Amino acid sequence: MNIKNIPVILASASPRRRELMEQAGFSFTVKTSSADETSTEKVPEKLCENLALLKANEVYKNIKNEYKDKEFIVIGADTVVYYDGEILGKPEDEQEAFDMLTMLSDRTHQVYTGVCVIYRSSLGKQIELFHEKTDVTFYPITSFEIKDYIKTGDPLDKAGAYGIQGPFAIHIREINGDYNNVVGLPIAKLYQTLKGMDLIL
Amino acid sequence: MNIKNIPVILASASPRRRELMEQAGFSFTVKTSSADETSTEKVPEKLCENLALLKANEVYKNIKNEYKDKEFIVIGADTVVYYDGEILGKPEDEQEAFDMLTMLSDRTHQVYTGVCVIYRSSLGKQIELFHEKTDVTFYPITSFEIKDYIKTGDPLDKAGAYGIQGPFAIHIREINGDYNNVVGLPIAKLYQTLKGMDLIL
Repeated sequence: MNIKNIPVILASASPRRRELMEQAGFSFTVKTSSADETSTEKVPEKLCENLALLKANEVYKNIKNEYKDKEFIVIGADTVVYYDGEILGKPEDEQEAFDMLTMLSDRTHQVYTGVCVIYRSSLGKQIELFHEKTDVTFYPITSFEIKDYIKTGDPLDKAGAYGIQGPFAIHIREINGDYNNVVGLPIAKLYQTLKGMDLIL
Repeated sequence: MNIKNIPVILASASPRRRELMEQAGFSFTVKTSSADETSTEKVPEKLCENLALLKANEVYKNIKNEYKDKEFIVIGADTVVYYDGEILGKPEDEQEAFDMLTMLSDRTHQVYTGVCVIYRSSLGKQIELFHEKTDVTFYPITSFEIKDYIKTGDPLDKAGAYGIQGPFAIHIREINGDYNNVVGLPIAKLYQTLKGMDLIL
């Protein structure tokens, strides 16, 4: 994979997003956004896109002077978990993690990741905004298994209280869509979007 | 995840299978089978199960005296890629890798992994054999992109000439089923099977 010789800035602190970008072969730097991520938006497609735009724009504003007249690309992303009309964030404590996983057991839920690409060139500022949806189905999970998983410490920093990689993998019956979208970044659609923007060699 | 205090032997040299077992929390040792993996079977479900059984049985025979009267579990697995009535093995060279990936571009194919669990206890030898199927859909891939991927060296030791993890991820549009099944081991169904055999605490 060869992106054109333009600096890429990933507007995300997530180590999982960073890893996906590295595995795909991107060269990039990370600049974290301090944007306020609260939103009253209840439609998951819109919420994840709005937050991705917010994060990318915040970083864009912070760095545009630094890059002066040079071209650069900023990538922002946001992942939300959705089940039965409700958006699930990161659990506040172990009890909330337990309740979320109990609710999702033996059911199918949706994971949405919104992605915002801002490309600044001599022609101006081009923005591409999209999202990707993946259905995730869990096997039935016992209370004992949920408690055992919570003990790993994995759920607390993750929307929906689970990570699809690692110890929770034994409870995932199937997915329908892009796996990396559940990890936190739909790297394939991101690459295809950059290709469509003529940014890949 | 807590498997009962019984030695587990993974009858596979694949580093990806080993990693999935480790991430899931299994304690195990690896013993490689030298079983002849050629088969004339053309039905992918049967082929992958037959080869998984062959590998597990070979290792079982080699170690059963070593474990004398003790309990133990042997796990064998085999992954095949299937497209349009044809089973795709590992490519013999870069040209064959190129031809396989050109054929799979912009299409949906199937990945089957067969798994064999042999549990020897004081009650005798219990065998569980199953397979898992995952549909994988590629984006359209250009000749340039295929050549670029082949340069990474990734395709040559992989059935179907690609690995779903790493640099090829940018070309995967979606999957339908278990992702880890495509990596090489349906760790969720394996766990659920061991649970059904009453081997999980």
